[in-house]
Amino acid sequence: MTGDMLTIFSEFLGTMILILLGDGVVAAVSLKKSKAEGAGWVAITMGWGAGVAMAVYISGFMGPAHLNPAVTLGMAMIGNLEWSMVIPFIIAQVAGAIVGAVLVWLTYLAHFRETTDQGAILGTFATAPEIYDTVSNVMSEVIGTFVLVFGIMAFGQNSFTDGLNPLVVGVLILSIGLSLGGSTGYAINPARDLGPRIAHAFLPLKNKGGSDWGYSWIPVVAPMLGAALAALLYMVII
Amino acid sequence: MTGDMLTIFSEFLGTMILILLGDGVVAAVSLKKSKAEGAGWVAITMGWGAGVAMAVYISGFMGPAHLNPAVTLGMAMIGNLEWSMVIPFIIAQVAGAIVGAVLVWLTYLAHFRETTDQGAILGTFATAPEIYDTVSNVMSEVIGTFVLVFGIMAFGQNSFTDGLNPLVVGVLILSIGLSLGGSTGYAINPARDLGPRIAHAFLPLKNKGGSDWGYSWIPVVAPMLGAALAALLYMVII
Amino acid sequence: MTGDMLTIFSEFLGTMILILLGDGVVAAVSLKKSKAEGAGWVAITMGWGAGVAMAVYISGFMGPAHLNPAVTLGMAMIGNLEWSMVIPFIIAQVAGAIVGAVLVWLTYLAHFRETTDQGAILGTFATAPEIYDTVSNVMSEVIGTFVLVFGIMAFGQNSFTDGLNPLVVGVLILSIGLSLGGSTGYAINPARDLGPRIAHAFLPLKNKGGSDWGYSWIPVVAPMLGAALAALLYMVII
Amino acid sequence: MTGDMLTIFSEFLGTMILILLGDGVVAAVSLKKSKAEGAGWVAITMGWGAGVAMAVYISGFMGPAHLNPAVTLGMAMIGNLEWSMVIPFIIAQVAGAIVGAVLVWLTYLAHFRETTDQGAILGTFATAPEIYDTVSNVMSEVIGTFVLVFGIMAFGQNSFTDGLNPLVVGVLILSIGLSLGGSTGYAINPARDLGPRIAHAFLPLKNKGGSDWGYSWIPVVAPMLGAALAALLYMVII
Repeated sequence: MTGDMLTIFSEFLGTMILILLGDGVVAAVSLKKSKAEGAGWVAITMGWGAGVAMAVYISGFMGPAHLNPAVTLGMAMIGNLEWSMVIPFIIAQVAGAIVGAVLVWLTYLAHFRETTDQGAILGTFATAPEIYDTVSNVMSEVIGTFVLVFGIMAFGQNSFTDGLNPLVVGVLILSIGLSLGGSTGYAINPARDLGPRIAHAFLPLKNKGGSDWGYSWIPVVAPMLGAALAALLYMVII
Repeated sequence: MTGDMLTIFSEFLGTMILILLGDGVVAAVSLKKSKAEGAGWVAITMGWGAGVAMAVYISGFMGPAHLNPAVTLGMAMIGNLEWSMVIPFIIAQVAGAIVGAVLVWLTYLAHFRETTDQGAILGTFATAPEIYDTVSNVMSEVIGTFVLVFGIMAFGQNSFTDGLNPLVVGVLILSIGLSLGGSTGYAINPARDLGPRIAHAFLPLKNKGGSDWGYSWIPVVAPMLGAALAALLYMVII
Repeated sequence: MTGDMLTIFSEFLGTMILILLGDGVVAAVSLKKSKAEGAGWVAITMGWGAGVAMAVYISGFMGPAHLNPAVTLGMAMIGNLEWSMVIPFIIAQVAGAIVGAVLVWLTYLAHFRETTDQGAILGTFATAPEIYDTVSNVMSEVIGTFVLVFGIMAFGQNSFTDGLNPLVVGVLILSIGLSLGGSTGYAINPARDLGPRIAHAFLPLKNKGGSDWGYSWIPVVAPMLGAALAALLYMVII
Repeated sequence: MTGDMLTIFSEFLGTMILILLGDGVVAAVSLKKSKAEGAGWVAITMGWGAGVAMAVYISGFMGPAHLNPAVTLGMAMIGNLEWSMVIPFIIAQVAGAIVGAVLVWLTYLAHFRETTDQGAILGTFATAPEIYDTVSNVMSEVIGTFVLVFGIMAFGQNSFTDGLNPLVVGVLILSIGLSLGGSTGYAINPARDLGPRIAHAFLPLKNKGGSDWGYSWIPVVAPMLGAALAALLYMVII
């Protein structure tokens, strides 16, 4: 593969790995009879941090490794991506996220059968806040995504030695997870939330409840808003 | 923005991010119904370490990223900062810390409402020792800040590949937190403690107790003393 | 030593260290009266991640540091290793794994005597799934090894600064452990499982049960399959 | 300071920081009313790993940063250090370790007063095995130190980008701690054990028991033996 085709494929593949590793750690910690059952928030945030770093390494030699519509929006706003690529990127990211969620299901096949808690099962796909409160939930996702997108833009202003950037992005995800993720579970990425939620809706899960579509607009809209704010601040500074 | 203006702004922005991520992890672990509730000391120290590293990356392309009046004092003493910049830096750092604390409040809005423990709420803003004992508390903050400031000065004597320095600073914060933070909660930074304490005093928190002003001088004075000792030793060696 | 001899020796030595550190952390967490008893899944996955990174540093200056027959197979498929070296490498890896398991036994000699749980003892040597289910177990090992081998191949396409590669491999192992290891315990390496299982069979362990040979084919066959799939995808892309 | 004087001073200062941060995390986790009380083995091993890395950065710009008589012995054996420097280095390391232990005591002054468990207090100074068994304890310290010293020698054969080496040494310490430290508490450094034990003997601790001199020879002799074995293997290979 070459050119735009390869770049778009890299967004698909990278987001697939991102969700396989990211939702994978939630599954590992939440599902019955998993060796990681009850390993807690440190395991989840380390797993997401390491997983994002790996997804960037694995797809980053083929493309810019946004793996996140909010990052794609921000990068287009500051002129780092052609606007014509925004829709194809987002489609590839959501598709990758759906496939990644299916792979998590295959990895923990026997454990999904043993788990009866419908909330825990949905939680291995999509995010849900601990307290449903629109203002608080939106604020949390806006601030978290602002730090993510402004951070990535700032990394672009730093000079990094070869290969260090994805590790630093991983530490940024770890940091946002530990510090800003306790309220809504830090979607901070519309594809990360919407893709697996779609997978949850169609997969033949034994103990499946609803897919909580009522909440689903917040982890899509709020991250886009946070990314736009980050891009605006970045443009003011630079 | 350019020149001194940009440098001072970078201290404001960096310290804002520092407190958003640093106090954020304390809020995540301490507030009711947070997903990180009870995640413990490893989560807190990892969150502060990663948060400081991120704050340095995010502000470090615009300025020296002290983000701490004690570091600023030490750097002025060894001739790495003009003395005329010390007061503007400290004002920017404290202002950034106040805004950062407000952002933590917005991130966990619903959770601050649900939490009734006044000590836990104050703890998401400012530090408090587990045992009030002036000699022991001062000693703890002096030694912790000595290691921080001497460490940062020593890093300047090492040769680092591009982009590695903030990660190493993050590991230093993790190390101080794990090893020297158990007694007073390692303020080791007057702005980190004073700024959020001011925010605590004026924010409309539902279950707010006092701001413990009686203790507040220790995390301001002792870190400055520790930084001065580090600068003196550094000047003897170099 | 020089040439092929040294390269093959490096696979032996590296896999020995890999198992000493990897199985070592399982022993530390599982055996009676160990200081790490009950330290849990975060300790185990960090221990394996750090251990693999160290094994790669320690053997990587003498050879390619595959330390895993699945990696060796994948590398031969994409043309990074002569096919004639595959069998010698695999023999060296399994032999190293056996010796590494013996060293774990020597390190925790007194603790193996105090431990009576036969499953815990076997678990310090070889992997066992939490739920015996051939389809689910195979799927889990195939997906985990696919990510491992494709990841290592992708790292080869990245440009890394000197010395960073083994650390990134360590983070990949941490990531796979946290996210994909909860079901079968992530063998993702035939030598890692088979070598210590052989050691378990012949060592004079006081409270020894069976070596669970019925399961032993899965952590050998499934990783080879996952590696082959990764090599195929890699060849399609590049 | 210049020349040999500075080099020897760097061993003193580095080992002082090593023990301040290393014994500090044990104090943080073990002493009464510490914020880290009960944070467990992951905190302790992360604290030692980060602490060693910091001690190497802080002293490494002035000297070779052995900070460990076993490393000094190994380096002399393979010709990386003049034999005439071995005794001065070891004296500086033990002296630094004594001062470091005194600084831990000052950092946790109030907490040492509140703690009554004599074993916990001694544990914040020197190591003690969970099971007293000479063969097992010696084996454990020999194997742990072998991995440490052979690892450091292997790092010297790798090519590292500027500033990465101390971080990798920190990960090695983390790895040895997690994987090989559960039995004896991984002294793997005669100065790390002997220096603080001497401090324990003379400090005016309120609830002080004996200093367990009966065990004290093992963490001195066994690490020297492990280092010698590592040096021998290294000389055979190179």
